[in-house]
Amino acid sequence: MNLLGIAGSLRAGSFNASLIRAAGAAAPDGAGVTPFDRLGEIPPYNDDEKQKAIPDAVAALAEDIRAADGLLISTPEYNYGVSGVLKNAIDWISRVPDQPFKNKPIGVMGAAMGGLGTARAQYDLRRSFIFLEGLVMNRPEIFVGAAHTKFDENGALTDAATRDILTDYMKALTAWIERVG
Amino acid sequence: MNLLGIAGSLRAGSFNASLIRAAGAAAPDGAGVTPFDRLGEIPPYNDDEKQKAIPDAVAALAEDIRAADGLLISTPEYNYGVSGVLKNAIDWISRVPDQPFKNKPIGVMGAAMGGLGTARAQYDLRRSFIFLEGLVMNRPEIFVGAAHTKFDENGALTDAATRDILTDYMKALTAWIERVG
Amino acid sequence: MNLLGIAGSLRAGSFNASLIRAAGAAAPDGAGVTPFDRLGEIPPYNDDEKQKAIPDAVAALAEDIRAADGLLISTPEYNYGVSGVLKNAIDWISRVPDQPFKNKPIGVMGAAMGGLGTARAQYDLRRSFIFLEGLVMNRPEIFVGAAHTKFDENGALTDAATRDILTDYMKALTAWIERVG
Amino acid sequence: MNLLGIAGSLRAGSFNASLIRAAGAAAPDGAGVTPFDRLGEIPPYNDDEKQKAIPDAVAALAEDIRAADGLLISTPEYNYGVSGVLKNAIDWISRVPDQPFKNKPIGVMGAAMGGLGTARAQYDLRRSFIFLEGLVMNRPEIFVGAAHTKFDENGALTDAATRDILTDYMKALTAWIERVG
Repeated sequence: MNLLGIAGSLRAGSFNASLIRAAGAAAPDGAGVTPFDRLGEIPPYNDDEKQKAIPDAVAALAEDIRAADGLLISTPEYNYGVSGVLKNAIDWISRVPDQPFKNKPIGVMGAAMGGLGTARAQYDLRRSFIFLEGLVMNRPEIFVGAAHTKFDENGALTDAATRDILTDYMKALTAWIERVG
Repeated sequence: MNLLGIAGSLRAGSFNASLIRAAGAAAPDGAGVTPFDRLGEIPPYNDDEKQKAIPDAVAALAEDIRAADGLLISTPEYNYGVSGVLKNAIDWISRVPDQPFKNKPIGVMGAAMGGLGTARAQYDLRRSFIFLEGLVMNRPEIFVGAAHTKFDENGALTDAATRDILTDYMKALTAWIERVG
Repeated sequence: MNLLGIAGSLRAGSFNASLIRAAGAAAPDGAGVTPFDRLGEIPPYNDDEKQKAIPDAVAALAEDIRAADGLLISTPEYNYGVSGVLKNAIDWISRVPDQPFKNKPIGVMGAAMGGLGTARAQYDLRRSFIFLEGLVMNRPEIFVGAAHTKFDENGALTDAATRDILTDYMKALTAWIERVG
Repeated sequence: MNLLGIAGSLRAGSFNASLIRAAGAAAPDGAGVTPFDRLGEIPPYNDDEKQKAIPDAVAALAEDIRAADGLLISTPEYNYGVSGVLKNAIDWISRVPDQPFKNKPIGVMGAAMGGLGTARAQYDLRRSFIFLEGLVMNRPEIFVGAAHTKFDENGALTDAATRDILTDYMKALTAWIERVG
């Protein structure tokens, strides 16, 4: 089973990119998470530009989504919402013909330094997938708060409790993908 | 009284840019709305880049916000949320030293072709300003649905009912700015 | 196929009760909607009282939910949210042993006099079912605005466009129930 | 300065009632918080009943709101939203002539056993006050998570960090009331 991992932050040491990697390591046998690593190449959405051409990175993301059995999206929370960078990628993908989120099983999670662990962002993100007809798993949910205390300087997850939570989460997510995918 | 207008869509014929212009025309004597027209120059937010330099367009937006008596933000609704483009601009501005949304009076509105007129996006946007400590007017609210029937091909507002609503709105917004600004 | 209909308003002439009835009439052959009519008997949730006994009307609702193939919930919007009356019923049901919303297919809709047709309430309601692990259909959605112009004084749906929308909705909802129920 | 405290849970040992009391104790000199203690007497909202009479407890709450310089509302989170009990009280108050939330300064907070400390409920509650034109303070915010570890069996706040947060909060809230009240 092949999951596509999308982290919604561009900095090199992103907690959410780290969380995606840790989720891949915690996935059950036979399941893996491939990170999408071209989010930074996606330009600001402009409908006039879209009429001319779909940018390469957008086309690549759309293709990767289609090819995946399911998605794992890890969102930061900027200003009590989804990062503009991640939302902009979703906005582009939503305009691609035969939009690829439809009927795709999806797991939503997130990591942040604050105490709420991206909760506000995650529910906004889930609402987008109502429109896009993605199949977002209800529970379990993962809110990684105080993220700076849970990853080391190389982005490795060092918090055992979070690792256990991730293991349960990935077990549930792969079961969800088998059920509705 | 000088308001800065920010439309959250980049296409040339944007309904939200048109709505900002119409709001300016509907403003009471002595008040005007200056549109910010460099949103398309703001790059995807990347914290590593921010450490190096604040992009010119971000610095310009921050300066315009500081100089304004109040803000008028018109958001499209993409995928049941704020456009990534607008959210990304807010994400940048939020990281500028002495962040300029704090204590700034703000009006939120939006236009879309759908029936709900950007309602879902507007409440997410309002939530961001809780964190950013902007002073968003409660009511009246403006949800311009079926926008394609209310502006002509040059972006001029042709719907009389919407014009009346805008006139009332701008009267209330300027009073709000006087009250809390 | 037996659906349980829950309208979130108690007044005799409730638009949402009328919408539930109209949905039943619009259901495909072989499917029917039975309205739950004891919402007004459910007392304010008090955990101390719950320790003593589950009220009869709560037990009846829980049993009806369990027995149904799926739920159809029609919410009013009071003060930009779910009615307290409906939320209170959900709060009670959530505390019943082996809580019955889990894995239950659910359709969410609503009617109101305002233009947005209960959109704000519906997304809050959907969020409750993330916790409760209900399986809420993504789309289509129904937002009946200007409800006072669409039902006659006996609560009969008189608006043909709404009837068509309901017919499509019930077709999709019954298919959703067959798919995930 | 007289604040009215409203806790959104009815059980005798309510964390939110305890938090309201602790907030009163943490208020600056010259400010006090009087808890409203008749929430349990407010019946389920029914517009037909409202036409006949406003229930006594609703009239009392309306009067207390009018008489107060500001409100302090502490909401539990039931099923990822405002408790039905609290929302129902707001629904009643919203239908009282000359509705008393308008222009009233308000602080929103909450306590729960879970990690997020009622965040989801608080933003829904804040949205209701957009419609009702209450003046909700933006920040600071208080999310008391793991509440069962922070109060003793008599409802006394035993967590020093929370007490410090409350002290800062009450200082900010009283300043907000002076500013916009």
